[in-house]
Amino acid sequence: MTAVPPAVRLARAYLLRVAEPPAPALAELVAGHGPVRGAALVREGRVPPAVLAETEARSGVDRAAADLLAAEALGARLVVPEDEEWPAWPFAAFWPAAARGVDWAVPPLGLWVRGPARLDELSQSAVAVVGSRASTPYGDHVASELGYELAERGVTVASGAAYGIDGAAHRGALAAGGPTLAVLGCGVDYGYPSGHAGLLRRIAEDGAIVSEYAPGTPPARHRFLVRNRLIAVLSEGTVVVEAGARSGARNTAAAAAQLGRLVMAVPGPVTSATSHGCNLMIRNGDAVLVDGAAQVVETVGRLGADLGAETGRPVDESARPTDGLDPEQLRVHEALRPRAAHGADWLAKEAGVPLDRVRAVLPMLEHRGLAQRCPAGWRLAPTAARGRRER
Amino acid sequence: MTAVPPAVRLARAYLLRVAEPPAPALAELVAGHGPVRGAALVREGRVPPAVLAETEARSGVDRAAADLLAAEALGARLVVPEDEEWPAWPFAAFWPAAARGVDWAVPPLGLWVRGPARLDELSQSAVAVVGSRASTPYGDHVASELGYELAERGVTVASGAAYGIDGAAHRGALAAGGPTLAVLGCGVDYGYPSGHAGLLRRIAEDGAIVSEYAPGTPPARHRFLVRNRLIAVLSEGTVVVEAGARSGARNTAAAAAQLGRLVMAVPGPVTSATSHGCNLMIRNGDAVLVDGAAQVVETVGRLGADLGAETGRPVDESARPTDGLDPEQLRVHEALRPRAAHGADWLAKEAGVPLDRVRAVLPMLEHRGLAQRCPAGWRLAPTAARGRRER
Repeated sequence: MTAVPPAVRLARAYLLRVAEPPAPALAELVAGHGPVRGAALVREGRVPPAVLAETEARSGVDRAAADLLAAEALGARLVVPEDEEWPAWPFAAFWPAAARGVDWAVPPLGLWVRGPARLDELSQSAVAVVGSRASTPYGDHVASELGYELAERGVTVASGAAYGIDGAAHRGALAAGGPTLAVLGCGVDYGYPSGHAGLLRRIAEDGAIVSEYAPGTPPARHRFLVRNRLIAVLSEGTVVVEAGARSGARNTAAAAAQLGRLVMAVPGPVTSATSHGCNLMIRNGDAVLVDGAAQVVETVGRLGADLGAETGRPVDESARPTDGLDPEQLRVHEALRPRAAHGADWLAKEAGVPLDRVRAVLPMLEHRGLAQRCPAGWRLAPTAARGRRER
Repeated sequence: MTAVPPAVRLARAYLLRVAEPPAPALAELVAGHGPVRGAALVREGRVPPAVLAETEARSGVDRAAADLLAAEALGARLVVPEDEEWPAWPFAAFWPAAARGVDWAVPPLGLWVRGPARLDELSQSAVAVVGSRASTPYGDHVASELGYELAERGVTVASGAAYGIDGAAHRGALAAGGPTLAVLGCGVDYGYPSGHAGLLRRIAEDGAIVSEYAPGTPPARHRFLVRNRLIAVLSEGTVVVEAGARSGARNTAAAAAQLGRLVMAVPGPVTSATSHGCNLMIRNGDAVLVDGAAQVVETVGRLGADLGAETGRPVDESARPTDGLDPEQLRVHEALRPRAAHGADWLAKEAGVPLDRVRAVLPMLEHRGLAQRCPAGWRLAPTAARGRRER
């Protein structure tokens, strides 16, 4: 199926175990030497001190082949950056954050994936819905509705499969028949939390369970925080449904903001401690208030354009569909053809816009009803084609 | 008690009845000719067509003396711009709004007041708490707590004495023993709404009931909208507690914004139609989210300074108390003396800042704990004095 050499996959399986993510020095070594040579250097201990510090405790442990076999046995696989389905443009968001000194902004060396969906396709139009484990009936209701209505609109719901808000969001998406993406802080086979074993099975049927941790890795507190950066980066935006003042969901939201993702929050009663974090994020301007799926899609649709959250008014009915697009986005839009679909590479050349940016812009144009995804690539959406002719 | 000639008060009582407020042409006539000459011109019909249009229906009706007597009989009075207690600096906010073409931005020609409190003192540190008449138990609870805690902090709670949120806010303030300000869309004696007759009596005991409408004037729908601008202008900021999508409270909030007042809103469940207007105002950036009295005071304290609502982070403990003051505010602050209190005129001369601005800045400095109000005027607050010495 794939042209990736087995040695590459084995090397990355080894590297994923040899250091506890995020391991910035190891990531740099692998970026410089490639995975196979990088793994050999780590095994031999011929690495700079920073890499040694990250890897020496486990450099002698090589369970790569066993991990790959274990994954295969449970219908999982290791997706590596060399694979076609690797979501390259989301992970590209790590580099500017790392350049700003964000120490955890390290892309994963590979991802264990359980489920039939392609990772790049899932993350291309994903929105994360996260929140408190100790949710209230209000939060559960809102998260479930949000999951359902986002899935109905073709948005992939990403979350952490935890109790409370996460579970309600996944369940809502499943009820609408939509694929959903669960990112775990343990192995994809670990079945944690135990009460969600059935839910995880259902997520793996159509969507994907994703983890940096090899099969069998138990959950740990620090792994949830490390995992949160992946929920954030694999989504175009993160919605916090309920969060206390010190919730882990606020950590995901902070990660999303640092990675240039849009952060949204659902308000709640000021008398509810579980809404305190959401209300505070909105007050401080750290999150845009959203009251449901329509506002989430509207808000994410603005992504990259002038966010306008501070000055935004209800959309003018007479407005052009391309209002608010920046010049780069307009060029991608202009490059789309009404009938023939073209790949992102073709569009990048046609528009004169870097490929990574084209990949970022296309799902946004899709959300706004300006572009249509086809098996062969992208074309102008039928309504947008009419709008363009009328001008 | 007052040096205002009876002829002036009689003229203004006549003028308040002769046109339905807001009457911009009449206001301009009175500003140009003074109330006595203005009233005479109106009586004789020797006025420009615009004034004639506003006044001709009632120019022959003169119940000024009767109105003043009726007011006296019920312990009320007519406060006119010539009185010391006239809140001149709040009403000054109308002129820039009028210059921007806001047609209702017309200051009242006088105000009927029932209650012992001085109008200028009440409005100097007032915050409006308004909202839906059809409030929920959640909204009533929040409005009542807000009224109580604002009054405890020495803030005058202003509202419209309507059922629902307004009533809850007034009651909360009364429970804390604080004066509260009710602005009506009918005469101060009308006892509307009827179920609030007892509440209105209690408001009049320590605070003030205020209206542009002569005693006996019945309520009318358009009068509530006209009244809303007075609630907004007599307060430093307006908090909307619960509001549906088309609530009158949103009208007050819009008036407040147009008059340069700060607009705040309490969020609520996205599943509650009564919170829809509040959540929408917050989402659109038309209101700052507040979850209680502490945040209201913090937000109003920022008034005039960099609002910082979009970028604000929890206040840095090491920050100087004067951080965020603009140069004008800093000059007023520097003019304050640690022991001797001085009036606003003296401070205006000392700081080289216009008197109106000084009057606007002082309550803000007080909220921030930088200025202290004394019987003889204003002085540096003790803690601020310490902070200034340390620099």
